[in-house]
Amino acid sequence: TTSWAVCLSRTYSSSSDIRSIVELPDRIHPRYLRSTKPGSSLLSLKWPRPPRNLLVVQKLYSETVTDAVVKFAKHIHNEYPDIHLILEPRVASSIQERVDFPVYSSDDRPYIAQKVDVIATFGGDGTVLRAASLFKLHGSVPPIVSFSMGTLGFLGEWDFQEHKKVWREVYMSGSDVAVRDAAVPRGNKDSPEEQDDGNNPWALIKGKSMGAQRASKVLLRHRIKADIFDANGDNINDRLSDNLLGDSKSLAGPLAGTLEPSPSLRAINEISVHRGSHPHLAIIDIFQNGHFLTETIADGILISTPTGSTAYSLSAGGPIVHPLVKSLLITPISPCSLSFRSLVLPLDTKVTLRMSKKNRGRELDLSIDGKRCAGVSPGSELRVEGEFVGRSHDGRGEEWAGGVPCVIRTEDDDPWVGGLNGLLKFNHPFGRATEGED
Amino acid sequence: TTSWAVCLSRTYSSSSDIRSIVELPDRIHPRYLRSTKPGSSLLSLKWPRPPRNLLVVQKLYSETVTDAVVKFAKHIHNEYPDIHLILEPRVASSIQERVDFPVYSSDDRPYIAQKVDVIATFGGDGTVLRAASLFKLHGSVPPIVSFSMGTLGFLGEWDFQEHKKVWREVYMSGSDVAVRDAAVPRGNKDSPEEQDDGNNPWALIKGKSMGAQRASKVLLRHRIKADIFDANGDNINDRLSDNLLGDSKSLAGPLAGTLEPSPSLRAINEISVHRGSHPHLAIIDIFQNGHFLTETIADGILISTPTGSTAYSLSAGGPIVHPLVKSLLITPISPCSLSFRSLVLPLDTKVTLRMSKKNRGRELDLSIDGKRCAGVSPGSELRVEGEFVGRSHDGRGEEWAGGVPCVIRTEDDDPWVGGLNGLLKFNHPFGRATEGED
Amino acid sequence: TTSWAVCLSRTYSSSSDIRSIVELPDRIHPRYLRSTKPGSSLLSLKWPRPPRNLLVVQKLYSETVTDAVVKFAKHIHNEYPDIHLILEPRVASSIQERVDFPVYSSDDRPYIAQKVDVIATFGGDGTVLRAASLFKLHGSVPPIVSFSMGTLGFLGEWDFQEHKKVWREVYMSGSDVAVRDAAVPRGNKDSPEEQDDGNNPWALIKGKSMGAQRASKVLLRHRIKADIFDANGDNINDRLSDNLLGDSKSLAGPLAGTLEPSPSLRAINEISVHRGSHPHLAIIDIFQNGHFLTETIADGILISTPTGSTAYSLSAGGPIVHPLVKSLLITPISPCSLSFRSLVLPLDTKVTLRMSKKNRGRELDLSIDGKRCAGVSPGSELRVEGEFVGRSHDGRGEEWAGGVPCVIRTEDDDPWVGGLNGLLKFNHPFGRATEGED
Amino acid sequence: TTSWAVCLSRTYSSSSDIRSIVELPDRIHPRYLRSTKPGSSLLSLKWPRPPRNLLVVQKLYSETVTDAVVKFAKHIHNEYPDIHLILEPRVASSIQERVDFPVYSSDDRPYIAQKVDVIATFGGDGTVLRAASLFKLHGSVPPIVSFSMGTLGFLGEWDFQEHKKVWREVYMSGSDVAVRDAAVPRGNKDSPEEQDDGNNPWALIKGKSMGAQRASKVLLRHRIKADIFDANGDNINDRLSDNLLGDSKSLAGPLAGTLEPSPSLRAINEISVHRGSHPHLAIIDIFQNGHFLTETIADGILISTPTGSTAYSLSAGGPIVHPLVKSLLITPISPCSLSFRSLVLPLDTKVTLRMSKKNRGRELDLSIDGKRCAGVSPGSELRVEGEFVGRSHDGRGEEWAGGVPCVIRTEDDDPWVGGLNGLLKFNHPFGRATEGED
Ligand SMILES: NC(=O)C1=CN([C@@H]2O[C@H](COP(=O)(O)OP(=O)(O)OC[C@H]3O[C@@H](n4cnc5c(N)ncnc54)[C@H](O)[C@@H]3O)[C@@H](O)[C@H]2O)C=CC1
Ligand SMILES: NC(=O)C1=CN([C@@H]2O[C@H](COP(=O)(O)OP(=O)(O)OC[C@H]3O[C@@H](n4cnc5c(N)ncnc54)[C@H](O)[C@@H]3O)[C@@H](O)[C@H]2O)C=CC1
Ligand SMILES: NC(=O)C1=CN([C@@H]2O[C@H](COP(=O)(O)OP(=O)(O)OC[C@H]3O[C@@H](n4cnc5c(N)ncnc54)[C@H](O)[C@@H]3O)[C@@H](O)[C@H]2O)C=CC1
Ligand SMILES: NC(=O)C1=CN([C@@H]2O[C@H](COP(=O)(O)OP(=O)(O)OC[C@H]3O[C@@H](n4cnc5c(N)ncnc54)[C@H](O)[C@@H]3O)[C@@H](O)[C@H]2O)C=CC1
Repeated sequence: TTSWAVCLSRTYSSSSDIRSIVELPDRIHPRYLRSTKPGSSLLSLKWPRPPRNLLVVQKLYSETVTDAVVKFAKHIHNEYPDIHLILEPRVASSIQERVDFPVYSSDDRPYIAQKVDVIATFGGDGTVLRAASLFKLHGSVPPIVSFSMGTLGFLGEWDFQEHKKVWREVYMSGSDVAVRDAAVPRGNKDSPEEQDDGNNPWALIKGKSMGAQRASKVLLRHRIKADIFDANGDNINDRLSDNLLGDSKSLAGPLAGTLEPSPSLRAINEISVHRGSHPHLAIIDIFQNGHFLTETIADGILISTPTGSTAYSLSAGGPIVHPLVKSLLITPISPCSLSFRSLVLPLDTKVTLRMSKKNRGRELDLSIDGKRCAGVSPGSELRVEGEFVGRSHDGRGEEWAGGVPCVIRTEDDDPWVGGLNGLLKFNHPFGRATEGED
Repeated sequence: TTSWAVCLSRTYSSSSDIRSIVELPDRIHPRYLRSTKPGSSLLSLKWPRPPRNLLVVQKLYSETVTDAVVKFAKHIHNEYPDIHLILEPRVASSIQERVDFPVYSSDDRPYIAQKVDVIATFGGDGTVLRAASLFKLHGSVPPIVSFSMGTLGFLGEWDFQEHKKVWREVYMSGSDVAVRDAAVPRGNKDSPEEQDDGNNPWALIKGKSMGAQRASKVLLRHRIKADIFDANGDNINDRLSDNLLGDSKSLAGPLAGTLEPSPSLRAINEISVHRGSHPHLAIIDIFQNGHFLTETIADGILISTPTGSTAYSLSAGGPIVHPLVKSLLITPISPCSLSFRSLVLPLDTKVTLRMSKKNRGRELDLSIDGKRCAGVSPGSELRVEGEFVGRSHDGRGEEWAGGVPCVIRTEDDDPWVGGLNGLLKFNHPFGRATEGED
Repeated sequence: TTSWAVCLSRTYSSSSDIRSIVELPDRIHPRYLRSTKPGSSLLSLKWPRPPRNLLVVQKLYSETVTDAVVKFAKHIHNEYPDIHLILEPRVASSIQERVDFPVYSSDDRPYIAQKVDVIATFGGDGTVLRAASLFKLHGSVPPIVSFSMGTLGFLGEWDFQEHKKVWREVYMSGSDVAVRDAAVPRGNKDSPEEQDDGNNPWALIKGKSMGAQRASKVLLRHRIKADIFDANGDNINDRLSDNLLGDSKSLAGPLAGTLEPSPSLRAINEISVHRGSHPHLAIIDIFQNGHFLTETIADGILISTPTGSTAYSLSAGGPIVHPLVKSLLITPISPCSLSFRSLVLPLDTKVTLRMSKKNRGRELDLSIDGKRCAGVSPGSELRVEGEFVGRSHDGRGEEWAGGVPCVIRTEDDDPWVGGLNGLLKFNHPFGRATEGED
Repeated sequence: TTSWAVCLSRTYSSSSDIRSIVELPDRIHPRYLRSTKPGSSLLSLKWPRPPRNLLVVQKLYSETVTDAVVKFAKHIHNEYPDIHLILEPRVASSIQERVDFPVYSSDDRPYIAQKVDVIATFGGDGTVLRAASLFKLHGSVPPIVSFSMGTLGFLGEWDFQEHKKVWREVYMSGSDVAVRDAAVPRGNKDSPEEQDDGNNPWALIKGKSMGAQRASKVLLRHRIKADIFDANGDNINDRLSDNLLGDSKSLAGPLAGTLEPSPSLRAINEISVHRGSHPHLAIIDIFQNGHFLTETIADGILISTPTGSTAYSLSAGGPIVHPLVKSLLITPISPCSLSFRSLVLPLDTKVTLRMSKKNRGRELDLSIDGKRCAGVSPGSELRVEGEFVGRSHDGRGEEWAGGVPCVIRTEDDDPWVGGLNGLLKFNHPFGRATEGED
């Protein structure tokens, strides 16, 4: 328990150098407890000890968002001195310039999954998607706290105004220490209570009591995962993965142990195949659990999660599926058929999309959560299925695997309903006359 | 030209007795001129002489609406002394009680088509539909000025606040007399101008000049008409017509000459056949111009006008068709098929719906513009086609036949667009983020 | 184990009197085991001892179907002498006339749930629905074997040609006795194997070995259940139940112990509220887990099971949901809104439909699986939620409760896919040209 | 009238050189007469004198199609010696090699509109679209006779087996000469009848009388036309036109007189704007007759003709519009909105699509009839409206302008209905049970 304490350099002065996440202590995996409230399917976040490595993912090119991140960073630094802030390489230096303490850059991307305890996002739905996409090759995603900036999104849960309160709750989740008023000066160790807890970092956080039972509520968003095979039946995830990992030169080393040989690609919204700019319709054979289902002739096809049901799939005519329904959706995009309707299948269904030879040599665009990641040629196959959720299989009982744990509001049991009405303008009636007529 | 002048009794004092429309002078048919503005498909209203018989149709059971009608009635009486106000029997006495001049009741319903020059409606879309339905058996409908009360409707064009201005314009349409300030006291006949126009009732209307060219703009809403045949092929419109005419015992007399032997039933929104409360699906064969098109198994089927495309058909999944597109729509209601899509056919298409023998004896509900008018049994047929629009065929060149002439706004060329956005909440985007994301 | 043996009267000769099910031995509850095949969600049927009371439900007014039932009855009587055949009162005598052994009538309807071990249906989907509806007030439904007659249905699984094979498999499910060739004359007790099994009725069934592991596969179709409350908040299921139970005068006696005081109404397809023949739109407030979701103005609203997703909900525009997805669907029927899309919610969601006061006094039609069961007036509420599935709560560990166990094919893991393509004509492409063009 | 006779070289022997259409006599414009049959909206083809220049457009890379074209070419050469066969440059030599008479190449593309009298297509819908696209910049399209090869298409009207009969009817349309048995040897000039008609090329065609009144029926398919303006408001059709005309180096010369300065681009199916391979949604402002209608956030947007309503628009959820309904459709492709429904507007509506600045610099794909023709950048505008149909405005009374005249079957008044059922699999019912159930 000392390694991470050592990493905190309170005597730091130069703001010029950005540190690497390699230096950070290893990730802490929280546990997720079933809510005791009957009927609730939300989980309670429980840290075995306080999180230390906080990754910030922000919307780019927005002054407002950057200002918010700086404000948040300063707050964290002042009130939670044990926390290391990790930033994306693209923005790390611009933030570093504006704060007088060191930040870490997630440049060594393969280490992200080994180091990040918790994620905070600042932006819109796209920012949350990008944060999740950093864990596209990993079964285990840290909890995500998402702050909407300006416009409310479907995945953005919190207003930036709430950041102090929300972060405190996330941080304290699982502690048995009462949280008291944040206004009490930090570092004041005179009170007897804190002296006892000298070795409990949670005890450092002053504040009004939140009650011992108070813990952040987590909605576990299901993901789907895909493996890509070429016309010879060889798994070619690697080729796409390289592409996806972008600047990272090699997956050797740290990833070698933690990942499957060819890690599957995970999507939180959907996996899509689309004709892109090709004028001709895409022709794709769909198989369900190994059985031929249908040949689709369409602009493309979507395999969506319930989370993604309110994204592209909805635009393409699909139903709205609650994130807690264990399912995956098949929704065609502009199908050349009067009779293709969205299908909602069990989450563990194995869906295979085979790019038909009839596509005559041309590649189709494969995208994950709206980001194009490859061209797939005729004969190649995409094998999709829901991601396993639960204790990880690799024997490390600590690690919860599967899904994207999103910290959500507790006031209301189901923020999703608010999203329907507020964001989707669900069921706006025609006109205003509901009183009937003579 | 004296008959109508005689009918005006300025010395009337008792408000207790309601007069019959039979006493009123015969109807004046306006002409509808193509707009000179290129590209415009609206018509200009042109009265050969001022209208005299004004039918008021109002929403029932609404205090606000009744107040508005009384206000309107008094304004008309004061400013347009030559106008006779006709009211529906159900409301005539309640209005009569509140005004000190005589009103007429449309009780002798067969005479409506012979007497009414122009209609004003006060209420919602249902009120406009009811007004039009009074002419369900007639090819020629007087122009309709529709005032929305409270909530805006799709067919209600004018805000009640505008009633003075709007009515003046309708009344003056076609006159060459300049309209001057309504504030000038009426009856003041000293000015030389008015003395010259002693025999021109338009000259009695004082007011600010509206310009000689100013005329009300009319959107001619297309109707569809239906004839019903029993399983033996006999036209049974009569039976339904009786039903439709309600209290009127006989069509003999005034109607004998003006109507076809079995007048077709006209709809401004749609004609529908529906299973109603029967648990089993309706089975209906559809023919297009005599050719078998398809057998529908559904809750029901709609044949709609473009006007009706924003009513029931829209709810059932149909497209939005501009009222100027000469067409009729076939839209199924909850069809037992993945592949039934709305059809938009030329307005002059002959569509036949034949109630299949497979319905096993049970009747289906036939409705016109949302009012159930009959049960149709297996083997019977509904023959629908667009109503002819133009000069009437019966040799009386004066009379324009076909369609429902609706007085609409002129500020904007197309109030329909406003309706889409304001009333249908057309294309409300999800969320609010349109700026894209990193 | 003797009671049922006694009930079998081999010396029966007069076909005139029909027996009552009250005489029959009590119901045997099978167990449902998870399939050992990984990934499969189907269950294996396992009888603790052979079923004895077989209820036949058949399509009415069809000569072909009646012939099939007679054929089936004779086969059962000859090959499975321990089985008692129970028929619906409406058909019992017409079948009895054609066979020379006694049949039982389900006249004493309250006893059905106490006596019937297994059900065989002959007809279409409607027949299966009717069979299930006999258990509308009961948590525990016996396994259903459904034979399609003539046309294939979505719920009808087996071709009548297969009846001997299918029934044998159902009957033997769970026995450890090998099934041998049916051609071996029954009653031949010379073989040593059968002598040992003298007291095992399974041993009486000759036949080719099906292998000890062979058991019928069961798809457990989820049901939803509804409780109805009047405007005062009082549960009024009773009033509807009486109605539903039809001729049965009283629920006293045998039902007293087994049913909840006001048993919920179960649907296998959907629960619907509809305007019926009323011209005006139904106005219904929808609540989800106690939170207001939306006010619907529509022809009606459907709460469907995944099974029902291919029935009315599909016609109304809903998605196709696999029966194994634990969910319920809300689909509006012709909603007066451009923006109502089907919702797929977790099966344990509590959905409340409140008939709005805006309906102005008029009742709406409440139907269960397509059968109208009541008119519901403004202010009354329908509370719907998925039915619990598992061991029954009442302490009788034997009894599996919840869902409708349907015996399905085993050749293919998922007959549902066949249904999509064969019955729904799913994704029929336009034209036939899939080869692209110059 | 001699020029074209001279062009026919019966003594031609070398098949090696392909001639240029520049040598051909000028185009003959047929007239289109309203059908006398009441209610019919089809036109009758009437040549002032026999057509001479026949353009063949064929599907590429198909052996079967090339064989058919060779067969057709030989038939034409043998039986209609006055006809010149024009082929597309890509295929001209491969056909020329297989026939012993000269063919013409449409290489000098600008001349096509000046020379081609009639078009025959061999292939699928794409081939008809390509034929029409040759006249994308021209108001006047020659009549098109379309032969389907193998698969039936929506636009392909005739089976290749019918080519002799169909061509004879097209050729003779408008002649008063009876058509007699094709079996009578051609060139036999002994009969008195032909001697009289020595100077009438129609008289050369032997054959069984088709009756003087028999003429090919023509469906005039409406087109829409578009003009493109850059962010400065400058018309940039030219830039696209060059692109569209492909190999043609210059529009100078023959086109100078016949075309508008920047000819509009015509579409027979639709004009589309799409995000293509860009991951982000396209943002497009839509204006109707100059009024702002809505901002669309979507994959793209389609402005379709009624003909195109069964193509891409149908896949995107649009209605089926009969080709005789004078309208254009706006259908969004996967719009980010629950409430965008297809709009059907009068054909003369001016629809403007403005690429929003919110697209942040990136271009959208503009396609005409499925062929990408340009990238359009933010700020640029697409102005679309229906094409004028009627006598051309340029004073040359002969020339009919607007629309694509397609020769269609006469047996049935409306081949479109057959297309719905046969090709679109319109309204295929679920299951097969239409008889109801008990
Ligand atoms: N035609 C369409 O509707 C298309 C939709 N998309 C969606 O966009 C997603 C990528 O999002 P961005 O990177 O932000 O791209 P973006 O900036 O193009 O935004 C797409 C829109 O989708 C919304 N969105 C994203 N995920 C959502 C969810 N789960 N529920 C509700 N709304 C959601 C965003 O708020 C935004 O309004 C993809 O996963 C795909 O689902 C992508 C392409 C086309
Ligand atoms: N499920 C549905 O959407 C149903 C719709 N209707 C429609 O209601 C009409 C009768 O109207 P009411 O007597 O007022 O009955 P109502 O009082 O039940 O109102 C029906 C609704 O349709 C609106 N409406 C009527 N005509 C319209 C039009 N042309 N465009 C846009 N909205 C329109 C009205 O404003 C009202 O909101 C029928 O002609 C039919 O089109 C009737 C039954 C069911
Ligand atoms: N517009 C519509 O589509 C309507 C549909 N229905 C459906 O009919 C059901 C009652 O069926 P019946 O008594 O046979 O009435 P019915 O004889 O009117 O048949 C309704 C049709 O639905 C089919 N069907 C029933 N359940 C199905 C399922 N689970 N999946 C696929 N198809 C199914 C039947 O095969 C039949 O073709 C109701 O539960 C309701 O779902 C009822 C009324 C209207
Ligand atoms: N998702 C979709 O449905 C897409 C459709 N298209 C359509 O394809 C057309 C171009 O056709 P091709 O060059 O043959 O491309 P293609 O070879 O990709 O074929 C498109 C399909 O559309 C059919 N088609 C074309 N015009 C039709 C019409 N008017 N009515 C009914 N079916 C029709 C063709 O027979 C073919 O099956 C475009 O004008 C566009 O309408 C183009 C892209 C995507």
